Amino acid sequence: MSSTWGNTLKLSIFGESHGPAIGMVLDGLPAGEPIDLAAVQVQMARRAPGLTAGSTPRMEADAPHVLSGMLEGRLTGAPVCVVIENTNVKSHDYANILHLPRPSHADYTGSVRYGGYNDIRGGGHFSGRLTAPLTAAGAICRQILGRRGVTIGSHVYQIHQICDTPFDPVHVDAGTLNRLNQEPFTVLDLKKKREMCTQIAQAQAEKDSLGGVIECAAVGLPAGIGSPMFDALESRIASLLYGIPAVKGVSFGDGFAISGLHGSEANDSMYYDESGSVKTRTNHNGGILGGISTGMPLLLRVAIKPTASIAQQQQTIDCVSHENATLVIKGRHDSCIAVRAQPVVEAAVAVALLDAMLTQGEVTCRG
Amino acid sequence: MSSTWGNTLKLSIFGESHGPAIGMVLDGLPAGEPIDLAAVQVQMARRAPGLTAGSTPRMEADAPHVLSGMLEGRLTGAPVCVVIENTNVKSHDYANILHLPRPSHADYTGSVRYGGYNDIRGGGHFSGRLTAPLTAAGAICRQILGRRGVTIGSHVYQIHQICDTPFDPVHVDAGTLNRLNQEPFTVLDLKKKREMCTQIAQAQAEKDSLGGVIECAAVGLPAGIGSPMFDALESRIASLLYGIPAVKGVSFGDGFAISGLHGSEANDSMYYDESGSVKTRTNHNGGILGGISTGMPLLLRVAIKPTASIAQQQQTIDCVSHENATLVIKGRHDSCIAVRAQPVVEAAVAVALLDAMLTQGEVTCRG
Amino acid sequence: MSSTWGNTLKLSIFGESHGPAIGMVLDGLPAGEPIDLAAVQVQMARRAPGLTAGSTPRMEADAPHVLSGMLEGRLTGAPVCVVIENTNVKSHDYANILHLPRPSHADYTGSVRYGGYNDIRGGGHFSGRLTAPLTAAGAICRQILGRRGVTIGSHVYQIHQICDTPFDPVHVDAGTLNRLNQEPFTVLDLKKKREMCTQIAQAQAEKDSLGGVIECAAVGLPAGIGSPMFDALESRIASLLYGIPAVKGVSFGDGFAISGLHGSEANDSMYYDESGSVKTRTNHNGGILGGISTGMPLLLRVAIKPTASIAQQQQTIDCVSHENATLVIKGRHDSCIAVRAQPVVEAAVAVALLDAMLTQGEVTCRG
Amino acid sequence: MSSTWGNTLKLSIFGESHGPAIGMVLDGLPAGEPIDLAAVQVQMARRAPGLTAGSTPRMEADAPHVLSGMLEGRLTGAPVCVVIENTNVKSHDYANILHLPRPSHADYTGSVRYGGYNDIRGGGHFSGRLTAPLTAAGAICRQILGRRGVTIGSHVYQIHQICDTPFDPVHVDAGTLNRLNQEPFTVLDLKKKREMCTQIAQAQAEKDSLGGVIECAAVGLPAGIGSPMFDALESRIASLLYGIPAVKGVSFGDGFAISGLHGSEANDSMYYDESGSVKTRTNHNGGILGGISTGMPLLLRVAIKPTASIAQQQQTIDCVSHENATLVIKGRHDSCIAVRAQPVVEAAVAVALLDAMLTQGEVTCRG
Repeated sequence: MSSTWGNTLKLSIFGESHGPAIGMVLDGLPAGEPIDLAAVQVQMARRAPGLTAGSTPRMEADAPHVLSGMLEGRLTGAPVCVVIENTNVKSHDYANILHLPRPSHADYTGSVRYGGYNDIRGGGHFSGRLTAPLTAAGAICRQILGRRGVTIGSHVYQIHQICDTPFDPVHVDAGTLNRLNQEPFTVLDLKKKREMCTQIAQAQAEKDSLGGVIECAAVGLPAGIGSPMFDALESRIASLLYGIPAVKGVSFGDGFAISGLHGSEANDSMYYDESGSVKTRTNHNGGILGGISTGMPLLLRVAIKPTASIAQQQQTIDCVSHENATLVIKGRHDSCIAVRAQPVVEAAVAVALLDAMLTQGEVTCRG
Repeated sequence: MSSTWGNTLKLSIFGESHGPAIGMVLDGLPAGEPIDLAAVQVQMARRAPGLTAGSTPRMEADAPHVLSGMLEGRLTGAPVCVVIENTNVKSHDYANILHLPRPSHADYTGSVRYGGYNDIRGGGHFSGRLTAPLTAAGAICRQILGRRGVTIGSHVYQIHQICDTPFDPVHVDAGTLNRLNQEPFTVLDLKKKREMCTQIAQAQAEKDSLGGVIECAAVGLPAGIGSPMFDALESRIASLLYGIPAVKGVSFGDGFAISGLHGSEANDSMYYDESGSVKTRTNHNGGILGGISTGMPLLLRVAIKPTASIAQQQQTIDCVSHENATLVIKGRHDSCIAVRAQPVVEAAVAVALLDAMLTQGEVTCRG
Repeated sequence: MSSTWGNTLKLSIFGESHGPAIGMVLDGLPAGEPIDLAAVQVQMARRAPGLTAGSTPRMEADAPHVLSGMLEGRLTGAPVCVVIENTNVKSHDYANILHLPRPSHADYTGSVRYGGYNDIRGGGHFSGRLTAPLTAAGAICRQILGRRGVTIGSHVYQIHQICDTPFDPVHVDAGTLNRLNQEPFTVLDLKKKREMCTQIAQAQAEKDSLGGVIECAAVGLPAGIGSPMFDALESRIASLLYGIPAVKGVSFGDGFAISGLHGSEANDSMYYDESGSVKTRTNHNGGILGGISTGMPLLLRVAIKPTASIAQQQQTIDCVSHENATLVIKGRHDSCIAVRAQPVVEAAVAVALLDAMLTQGEVTCRG
Repeated sequence: MSSTWGNTLKLSIFGESHGPAIGMVLDGLPAGEPIDLAAVQVQMARRAPGLTAGSTPRMEADAPHVLSGMLEGRLTGAPVCVVIENTNVKSHDYANILHLPRPSHADYTGSVRYGGYNDIRGGGHFSGRLTAPLTAAGAICRQILGRRGVTIGSHVYQIHQICDTPFDPVHVDAGTLNRLNQEPFTVLDLKKKREMCTQIAQAQAEKDSLGGVIECAAVGLPAGIGSPMFDALESRIASLLYGIPAVKGVSFGDGFAISGLHGSEANDSMYYDESGSVKTRTNHNGGILGGISTGMPLLLRVAIKPTASIAQQQQTIDCVSHENATLVIKGRHDSCIAVRAQPVVEAAVAVALLDAMLTQGEVTCRG
């Protein structure tokens, strides 16, 4: 139940960090769409370890192998299965978490949930590595959306206490997003990125880790996509985003800041622009009203906690002796996992938006 | 699609603000559970208009009529349908929104989505009134949870810029929650409530409105409830919470603040307490790790935007003349809808937690 | 879980035979469709008791009250809730089934499943009366389908050993179906109906009951509707049909008879007709190949068992004394429930076909 | 949407006949269950081609590779992905079906549904080969059921006009089923098998094919599993069985024959046996009442049409010239596909029963 999602589009993610392979099945895609696997690989590479400041030295090609659902570069309409091999596994690093659960990891909760039978090597199915197949799914969906004029991109809005310039909620455009969504660790203000990198390096040196916030936008989404109540765009997007390990907050538009405004400040007044299109002068609501897109940029933020694995000594329990204990985590870890979450957040948004459009019949088979 | 939710438990909400009735069907409840309808009515009353500062003068009994699924005070295992009549409807107030969509309301997006055929009277199916059946569903679920030791409560954590004392993330207990969850508009620090009321009254006098934040806790939840990925407790809870109109942010534990911490600060170290139970010394993660409950208090916050309906003149479009226009909203409106959201947030948490426990076989029929 | 069905369209059925009301919520319907409630009532009347030979003398208006989702005769896109009051309830007739479960009824299995807490009055949620809301749902869906050229109808193909003429699998047309789908108990060969009625009267006189078979057709369905595997049209239709009490068999096209044919006999050879349309010369497959419509008439049969409630003395168990016992069932019962199943079978087909068309984007909002 | 199924258990099947691999993801399995892969292989082998009379000479090992969800021979609780490579693919045999759709195959309907973009080589995702992953899923589920006392088996009840002895609906036992469920093409009366084989050989010699019926039983299922309405055991089982290509009929207990009985004949009278267990003297209802198991053997039959691919010349359309045409199918084909359907039918029943038991909390994690 846990790793399957969707309405018209069904996404099923499988695999463990140290098993033979991870992957996903995406069912319900429209037949006939050309898919550029090189563009999928670009997104995989943005998420892959080792490419960004403070990321784990575990290097993997993360090459997506398509087992089904594509023929001669196009979707066939049948389920797409993508498998990614685990080629660089060092399980011995994790031997002691069998009895010393790592604080703020799922070692303890997973053990209770699955009666101790879950695969704990490298975090098993709880590993951040499972965001690779989600990234692959998103990389397919965003190509289909792109052909309908929808562009998705993000930037690292915050690392620790350093904040990038936020997106202009009214004028953010496809050009900006396309500059951001091809590389790892992108920001709007490069000076801030340098400060962020300094912070990350310092945390790493101190055997510590940092959290961060990703801000994501989708532009070109027509008005009228989504539904009231539980298929609200916010509901659908948030339900995917909270499937990403380490996410502790999701907000749309002004998010929590909107609670401090007056209605007269927060309301987005409407007007016809010169071309007769309906626009709003501000976009505090982040492009969604009543769960449905307004036609303005869709904007959201995702709060990611500091990497739980730190090299400092920590206090935990010993599940064998049933006594309190101390733990020093070995192995390879990002000191700021938030940086690599950028393409994953974009992927989740892409999957949720395509599912909503398919459900309404806004995207159909190209036959 | 839009108004149906759930895995083992299925919730279907129906109705429009100015139709004959609203209600819900809740399918998959365990047979044999006694349900106290007076306790359901208490929750309905907390949400009902007219009882709190700044709420709309539209007064309705909001009495829940049970059409099915109960016999002699107990659940039968068949779907429970609860209907709430709309007894106090003044549709003429809404005549002009047919062509002048209200800013930051769903009038425009709903019209695009449903081709202009949606019922716009009082917001139709988009109305905040639809949170009444969700409150009823939650009021049933929380009784079943309560019998398993799970207690849910909340407080108005923030109105505009005034903040209540937050919950103690480690020590918040059932006694505290039970004091908070029986009355409308409850806080931990009564002095703050007086300040909040002053602010609300002032906004009302200025024909303006205010936003707010609800903080909610669940205690007594055993460790091991939930799943990794898309059935993460956060995913399931957020997908319901974002079905509540005006919600723009949902976070767990420290939420967005955790992004500014070091791992060494944010990690919740573990220990055995005197009774041998597994505890954490802090609770930055809000009682959830890897999507699964830790056994510590579950903590979340919900950001609610200022009521979109304000009595000031606003700028909008005229959908008939296709020109820009001004609008003055008449009718009855809360100047701070956040206050009434308290029991609704608790209800969403109750429904999501019971669904998770049923799915794992942790709650079964009492036969 | 038990009473909720659907992909894009979500149907939730609630109620018990002797509760205050039964009904359904249908979520995901396309906005803008005009719905003729008189036509809905026609279908309800075809299913209602007392109108046909051998039906129970319990007479109910079965008037559908629309609580939501319609405005000025059109669908709004919000969930449609229809409630049907139970006006003619005599619960005292069922007192003894509390401890003497009726053979071939769900009294015993329901009691085990729900720990004895299920409402057994009149069969509770297991009652054939719950097919009334399904009929209402189908009556709405078939109007939307009808506007796209799809016509559904059926006949009582078999009562006991008497068989009506079967549908011509190639040439059955909308005119024929529209003659059959407006009245209760319709057949192709009226002489056979008289024989059937004689049999039913005789069974009733002998305190016995009869089974039967409904044959249903849908014409005008374009080729290409449905999916391989678990969203095969057969899978979707059968999953609804088996929700109808007393159904023990569902087959498509030649059904079980096809197992006795050679491939050279059973294969439906293809050709272009004069207008260039793709047709098959025979239709052994009942208009479905690979789970997808061929454009030929869709044909299916549903086997319905003899009414389990018979007035003869029967052997059963005494759940109180835990001894074997005898039982004489009182109350009001059809001696041949199959006759009233006709509109219910058509309704199930209508709901399943509309869901399939919505899922593919073949039916969208009329906006 | 098409190839994903389930409530608590989620099954997602992927692959095409001539792609690199086929497989499935099964999500929601209980952690801690030991799984014997050799026993899985036994079921795969029963379905594999080349082992039975009249089966296609395409020989494949059909070895299931487990990519996830198992560790040291036990389920971890994470999704199980099983991949089966396609090692023996001859795509050139199918070149002409691009423009000459094979009668009674999904070539034409698939092409309309997917706009001509579906993979038609070897039937693509519509191929009977996709029953291999379903068989693997069932082989896992039946081990878990077996540990709870539930045994599933089947026999080839009918080939063309030859019928095996049917199961004794009251006394069929685990011993009998376990003799039947380890080998391909098993029957109760070996003399009938010889007659069936003769018929198959004759059909093959005549370039023709035959249909058949599989009868399947499950014993040891406790009373009380299932639900009324759309999660009726019949609904859930049938929805999976109709996902198997070539299935045209599914019935339970007496099936269509029950429609010809009187209620006094068809009703299964109840009694306490010597051990105090509730039994029925007959079992016309096939162990299910009101969608819920009675505790008596669960019995069902599945009608399978003659293999559509026959070597005789057939009439079809030419999709390029848009003229009527003739076709001679080459390639490798079973002359009686029904024989190989035995383990697939059992697998579908196993998946459906385990899902029902998990949904009710009757099977939980072994932790």
